[in-house]
Amino acid sequence: MNDNRHRAGDVIEGGRRVESDSMGQIEVPSDRLWGAQTQRSLIHFSIGKDRMPAELYHAYGVVKKAAAIANAESGHLPREKADLIIQAAEEVIAGTLDDHFPLFVWQTGSGTQSNMNVNEVISNRAIQIANGVLGTQSPIHPNDDVNMSQSSNDTFPTAMHIAAVKYLREILLPRVDALAATIERKADEWGQIVKIGRTHLQDAVPLTVGQEWSGYAAQLRYAMARIDASFDGLYELAAGGTAVGTGLNAPPGFDVRIAKKIAELTGYPFRTAANKFEAQASLDSMVAAHAALRGLAVALMKIANDMRWLASGPRCGIGELILPDNEPGSSIMPGKVNPTQCEAIVMICIQVIGNDTAVAFAGSQGNFELNAMRPVIINNFLHSARILADGCNSFLHYSVEGTEVQRKRIEGYVRNSLMLVTALSPVIGYDKASEIAHIAQRDDLTLKEAALKSGYIDEKTFDRVVDPKKMIGNQTA
Amino acid sequence: MNDNRHRAGDVIEGGRRVESDSMGQIEVPSDRLWGAQTQRSLIHFSIGKDRMPAELYHAYGVVKKAAAIANAESGHLPREKADLIIQAAEEVIAGTLDDHFPLFVWQTGSGTQSNMNVNEVISNRAIQIANGVLGTQSPIHPNDDVNMSQSSNDTFPTAMHIAAVKYLREILLPRVDALAATIERKADEWGQIVKIGRTHLQDAVPLTVGQEWSGYAAQLRYAMARIDASFDGLYELAAGGTAVGTGLNAPPGFDVRIAKKIAELTGYPFRTAANKFEAQASLDSMVAAHAALRGLAVALMKIANDMRWLASGPRCGIGELILPDNEPGSSIMPGKVNPTQCEAIVMICIQVIGNDTAVAFAGSQGNFELNAMRPVIINNFLHSARILADGCNSFLHYSVEGTEVQRKRIEGYVRNSLMLVTALSPVIGYDKASEIAHIAQRDDLTLKEAALKSGYIDEKTFDRVVDPKKMIGNQTA
Amino acid sequence: MNDNRHRAGDVIEGGRRVESDSMGQIEVPSDRLWGAQTQRSLIHFSIGKDRMPAELYHAYGVVKKAAAIANAESGHLPREKADLIIQAAEEVIAGTLDDHFPLFVWQTGSGTQSNMNVNEVISNRAIQIANGVLGTQSPIHPNDDVNMSQSSNDTFPTAMHIAAVKYLREILLPRVDALAATIERKADEWGQIVKIGRTHLQDAVPLTVGQEWSGYAAQLRYAMARIDASFDGLYELAAGGTAVGTGLNAPPGFDVRIAKKIAELTGYPFRTAANKFEAQASLDSMVAAHAALRGLAVALMKIANDMRWLASGPRCGIGELILPDNEPGSSIMPGKVNPTQCEAIVMICIQVIGNDTAVAFAGSQGNFELNAMRPVIINNFLHSARILADGCNSFLHYSVEGTEVQRKRIEGYVRNSLMLVTALSPVIGYDKASEIAHIAQRDDLTLKEAALKSGYIDEKTFDRVVDPKKMIGNQTA
Amino acid sequence: MNDNRHRAGDVIEGGRRVESDSMGQIEVPSDRLWGAQTQRSLIHFSIGKDRMPAELYHAYGVVKKAAAIANAESGHLPREKADLIIQAAEEVIAGTLDDHFPLFVWQTGSGTQSNMNVNEVISNRAIQIANGVLGTQSPIHPNDDVNMSQSSNDTFPTAMHIAAVKYLREILLPRVDALAATIERKADEWGQIVKIGRTHLQDAVPLTVGQEWSGYAAQLRYAMARIDASFDGLYELAAGGTAVGTGLNAPPGFDVRIAKKIAELTGYPFRTAANKFEAQASLDSMVAAHAALRGLAVALMKIANDMRWLASGPRCGIGELILPDNEPGSSIMPGKVNPTQCEAIVMICIQVIGNDTAVAFAGSQGNFELNAMRPVIINNFLHSARILADGCNSFLHYSVEGTEVQRKRIEGYVRNSLMLVTALSPVIGYDKASEIAHIAQRDDLTLKEAALKSGYIDEKTFDRVVDPKKMIGNQTA
Repeated sequence: MNDNRHRAGDVIEGGRRVESDSMGQIEVPSDRLWGAQTQRSLIHFSIGKDRMPAELYHAYGVVKKAAAIANAESGHLPREKADLIIQAAEEVIAGTLDDHFPLFVWQTGSGTQSNMNVNEVISNRAIQIANGVLGTQSPIHPNDDVNMSQSSNDTFPTAMHIAAVKYLREILLPRVDALAATIERKADEWGQIVKIGRTHLQDAVPLTVGQEWSGYAAQLRYAMARIDASFDGLYELAAGGTAVGTGLNAPPGFDVRIAKKIAELTGYPFRTAANKFEAQASLDSMVAAHAALRGLAVALMKIANDMRWLASGPRCGIGELILPDNEPGSSIMPGKVNPTQCEAIVMICIQVIGNDTAVAFAGSQGNFELNAMRPVIINNFLHSARILADGCNSFLHYSVEGTEVQRKRIEGYVRNSLMLVTALSPVIGYDKASEIAHIAQRDDLTLKEAALKSGYIDEKTFDRVVDPKKMIGNQTA
Repeated sequence: MNDNRHRAGDVIEGGRRVESDSMGQIEVPSDRLWGAQTQRSLIHFSIGKDRMPAELYHAYGVVKKAAAIANAESGHLPREKADLIIQAAEEVIAGTLDDHFPLFVWQTGSGTQSNMNVNEVISNRAIQIANGVLGTQSPIHPNDDVNMSQSSNDTFPTAMHIAAVKYLREILLPRVDALAATIERKADEWGQIVKIGRTHLQDAVPLTVGQEWSGYAAQLRYAMARIDASFDGLYELAAGGTAVGTGLNAPPGFDVRIAKKIAELTGYPFRTAANKFEAQASLDSMVAAHAALRGLAVALMKIANDMRWLASGPRCGIGELILPDNEPGSSIMPGKVNPTQCEAIVMICIQVIGNDTAVAFAGSQGNFELNAMRPVIINNFLHSARILADGCNSFLHYSVEGTEVQRKRIEGYVRNSLMLVTALSPVIGYDKASEIAHIAQRDDLTLKEAALKSGYIDEKTFDRVVDPKKMIGNQTA
Repeated sequence: MNDNRHRAGDVIEGGRRVESDSMGQIEVPSDRLWGAQTQRSLIHFSIGKDRMPAELYHAYGVVKKAAAIANAESGHLPREKADLIIQAAEEVIAGTLDDHFPLFVWQTGSGTQSNMNVNEVISNRAIQIANGVLGTQSPIHPNDDVNMSQSSNDTFPTAMHIAAVKYLREILLPRVDALAATIERKADEWGQIVKIGRTHLQDAVPLTVGQEWSGYAAQLRYAMARIDASFDGLYELAAGGTAVGTGLNAPPGFDVRIAKKIAELTGYPFRTAANKFEAQASLDSMVAAHAALRGLAVALMKIANDMRWLASGPRCGIGELILPDNEPGSSIMPGKVNPTQCEAIVMICIQVIGNDTAVAFAGSQGNFELNAMRPVIINNFLHSARILADGCNSFLHYSVEGTEVQRKRIEGYVRNSLMLVTALSPVIGYDKASEIAHIAQRDDLTLKEAALKSGYIDEKTFDRVVDPKKMIGNQTA
Repeated sequence: MNDNRHRAGDVIEGGRRVESDSMGQIEVPSDRLWGAQTQRSLIHFSIGKDRMPAELYHAYGVVKKAAAIANAESGHLPREKADLIIQAAEEVIAGTLDDHFPLFVWQTGSGTQSNMNVNEVISNRAIQIANGVLGTQSPIHPNDDVNMSQSSNDTFPTAMHIAAVKYLREILLPRVDALAATIERKADEWGQIVKIGRTHLQDAVPLTVGQEWSGYAAQLRYAMARIDASFDGLYELAAGGTAVGTGLNAPPGFDVRIAKKIAELTGYPFRTAANKFEAQASLDSMVAAHAALRGLAVALMKIANDMRWLASGPRCGIGELILPDNEPGSSIMPGKVNPTQCEAIVMICIQVIGNDTAVAFAGSQGNFELNAMRPVIINNFLHSARILADGCNSFLHYSVEGTEVQRKRIEGYVRNSLMLVTALSPVIGYDKASEIAHIAQRDDLTLKEAALKSGYIDEKTFDRVVDPKKMIGNQTA
């Protein structure tokens, strides 16, 4: 395969083109822009179905464009070369070259093969633009020109941070926000409906449906704030540290300049990492940001579980809520409707929690000047972000939005519950109140019947004190 | 501290005794039998509150006793020395020397410090028995005599396996068995009570309470079988591999002999590991055995969750079961009773699943001839086993045994459920049956009313086909 | 969308066909065989990029074929209908209809939507074969005919078990076996090369390279045995339990018959589950089987880590092994070669351990008669199995096979190591041997120089005792 | 046991005292201050060895004191009662009553039993102070007085937050800071020592030892900042929400007042939670704070692993660092010294990552108005914090502080490494530089020999460009 019989760029039989790298020649499909190193990776790492996510390549396009600008400005890269690289990089960013990034997640742990894939595609695309011969590495060389002042070791985590920030800011957070906003609207709408509270799954004192839902919204808002707080770490970029963090082969100030360009190109306040050795040897900011995603999963799981339990029934469960009927629920039980959106959310949350284990584990396995567990981290990161984002969207539109309350059922529970007895405690003390509750349950009485039977309280006082509407307290939803 | 001003064994001011090792002298409390290396570990590893579990030391006593017998038999250890070691080791096994094993879990990853703790305590205890001077290492030397033919590298995992097998066989499995047996008895007792089934938390077709509980029992029985299957790996012992698995400094055949002695002493079919390099460089059998414990946790969590949901209420939940009232449930709500045993079980299961992450992670971190993550593994292992065993015991006696069914509630659900419509499918087809269910739900009718209204079926056929008692099928509990 | 203006099967503008279910009509792409419920799922669950794996559908084809045979034999399904279903199911099994199974993993937790996808595709494909009109559900109805005697609740876990067994038996285990066999061959080849052992990363006593590699092979063989042991649980099938485990709407004996057919069709000893309630309400066998996959990951991680550390260098690391140079290792450092296959394996193992957290978590979340976390479990299961299988394959062919030993370096280490001193312990005692080692290290002497200097031993004895070749012991590789 | 034959407070035979609650009478040890509910919990929840941590009770003392002050100020609690409660609570805070808090972690998921333990002990201790009769609940009633305006549901998470903040602020963070400061000092001290960098475990371009260690310090500083950022969520207190978040039975404004008192008593800026429903139904802030602890673990693991690998040897490993010899490393290999502090840290980190799985899982399992998984969360939280804090302390004093560099070895590596070739890339291009490196490795030449042999560069240029001192770049440590 590496016999070097051909001249670089030769197109040979079977629609294949000769590409080469420091190990020799190799054939690639002639309709693809990648080069020798990408092809070697495809051969050696054909593992599973997990491809490096497109978002990473789009982010890498930003890195390459910013590097070309910075290299041109500092005079290291001729303006014409820079322009060619920039033009090709813009196509990478736009996603029009996605088909040229075929590599698997399970490759070298530094992501070098994907960096070289980007270098090769930009090189060849620039050559095309310049009417050169593909595979000749001229006028644009993948290493010397596209990768100038860079290493995979500093640019791959840079691209990870960019991809993560963009996905969370532009896709995930808006969707969580929409979900939270709808829940807040529901909380408002249901702010006066008094329902029985439940703790330990057991009947407790009342609150309003709106108060309950305000708790869901608050969970989401806090989760969003925690994701937001994780950006600070992600804004720090390794670029400029090159191979081991010292910046070897990058001109002085390159780190600051490329970070500034990236900030301009993306609109986010990226900045050069204060310590490049940390930035390349660890992925601690990614681990922290994924923990914030996990926080969202933990919150969502509570909400989705509550909704499906409150909607359980229709006749033999709790039945306080009615979720939309989107599809038949059973292949054998006619007319059955299930809380399928909630189940999907719960499964998504479980997946995110599993992914989080992988991310933290990988984050702990760096050695010396490199954490070589990057592909598994970015893949899990974007996987989690994607299913959370899409899951929130489906959950919102096909479940939360159309959820309705069963007022009759809700009122019945409040009427029957014994825990309204709690309101008597300040009047007659905990021990006597407890006795009343036990009598009611033992003799199947209403709370009022038991209270009057106990002799501890008269009817008038009871009616004044035990009024669910007065028990929902001073905590606004 | 290591100034060697004293003679070995000197008892000096402040109730301290001089002990020594290859690094020099050090003072230990004179009422403790440990020696210099234990003391050094206490100083350098005073971390947290996690002490190496007593069960490990008892198992280590077995190892030391078996080694002394084997060394005596092969003529390497004089009979009198062997007898002294054996006598002291028996006290270790019996637990009467537990106060002399103070070390923390967070120590050297090989467990050497705990092995030396055992060697030192047996040495000093043997010296006591022989009326020698503590700390003189004569007539019994901790390394040359007690540790003869051994290394921490082979004996620590041997002790781990012994401790694990004993705990699971003698404590955990009998308690799970008792729990399963009671559940089976309940399943039998409730074998004729027809209840509504629930899938997706939604009403489904009926089954008996006994059938439902038979599923719980089956989960436990399978979990027990999986724990049982994990013993095969635990029965393989590293002892005899010494430092790196080659058996250096152990006489030929020592590995087989010591395993045989350990089998005799414990009554379990321990055998020498077929490959000592695997046995010392990995802890794969421990990882697998903990996975079996996790399997039990996964099963128990389902059971405990079902029980607390089925007992939810008393008036605003499902309320099919009544769990025993063991204690007041609330500091503010008088008369509240909560499913506290179930909650304890759920928390235990979550802890075991967390421990399992730690065990697997640690299991993956071996290097070359040693997995130096042993203390964290044995500690998590025995922690999981202990809380599962005790948890099953409490759950059995304070929750499962006293659980009762609410027949009236159970019958009401069966009467009201719409999913009995499923029985009509073979007669009128899925689509028409589905239509009937939807009508009933929409118009708040009973299933029979809706069925007759639909015109798809006559009353006589309906009554014959839709009989819950006939719907509990041919699957015996 | 559900306005029912059309007749079933109408093909309307835009290349779409009208399909219907109990909720009404809906349009589907006319070149696709799926029906209304699949289409509804596509709309409501467009979440992420995770599609239900093809292997599950192939397994589901086996279930549908076996059910049709059993239903025909018991006289419930007319022979002609059975033949049509069987013919269509065989195409599902063969994978030729893969394009007709588009659903996402994040759907209903029972997998009902994928079961209906299979029912609909088989129905429509059978209609095609019978020259009927697509979407008319005649002559083959997706529920009444294809799903006869079945529910998603019993067939989905049945398909999970079949898919898991087939993948592990036919893909994963053969690949692990090939890897283990090559490692065994290497162990044999290198059986006489004495090297320094390492414990705690520190120099220890010697063993042979073959012995070290025999430990790797043993780890893999045990991991395979544990996977093998997990099949027993997977061989138990829920089919026949229908909706809640009672077997409602399935004829007596159907469970035994369908399991027998599935065993015949697959060649594996599947049998009906002893307790259908356990089989449908839990996924404990899947959790246990995934734990066995995790066990393989834990073993592989040790092996891959050892290999990359032993090959570290080439000049500033341990350098005992040389791994094949498959590709340039760095975009910035010319000539650098990295242990990329090992890194890919380590990342795969981390992913599998993360997936395992998700699987166990999901396994614990069943309620009542159903564990509604099935899609997330089967997806993680097949994901883990696939990347392990492919990873072993790449690792074998691109790393293990071509690995070579650096004899010169290995011999140098043995010569210089101080830990050969251990062989002196039985002769002069641990304490004096220890003193010699400390002198050697302090004064930068060879072990022999330090030993003779100490005066504890004469040269002749030293040479006889301290011979690495005699220290590799009686443990055969 | 609950026969009520005695009068409350009776001291009966066997040194036991009669206590009572709403379920009746029960005997407790007469030298203990706890009451009936604590005793019931001890009987029903004797599970494992995990006791609720003392720090939680100390924090609970703060809650009770603050509540008494607030209740007195609002006129609900007579001043004399308040004073008694305050005095008893101060003893709880000081830890002098620790022996009276015996409960296990595995209890009710709300922590009610521990809240009642506090209420009972404060009640009885106040009775003692007032010269009353223990067990009479007079003049201070555990529920009506000590628990006034409170529920376990709001106070237990309040105590969790207080305990967490205090432990992290006062114990953990100062210890991490000390560790980071020492690492920074070392980085400074070693700022001019040029060493070979390593990526993928393979030789790379140089950096200084100081730069490498500056990365470690940066990891710790960022980890500290993330822990710091997690306080904001912990500062929000549920107190005042009482049973379900509505504040039933607490006077208006109680929530704000008690938070203010707690802030005053502790010196930390605690404030009332904006949404009590979120604060009681979720433990999301605890999950997030534990994720920050995990972040520290991930960072520490990298550092400890690097240190033990860099110290590997002494003769057959990397050997760039020398760690202090604290103890003999082996029971069989004389003179062996192992990186035991690093191993302890790695095990601690693994435990924290396992604990994190448990915490996140538990955090996801709330239902309705309560997350009833609190004890498992606070126990894991304080466990992680404690072993991290103590681990950092030991690691600092017994390993990091005494670590030294092996200059000779470090310089030798820099001299021999081939990766200095990278500096030639900007001069002769990546491909030619790569060729030189390959020649050197193949022919066992120095880099200079190979470079000159290649003809691509002259000696003078080589000497000017390939100077390690110039390659450590513009990134300050």
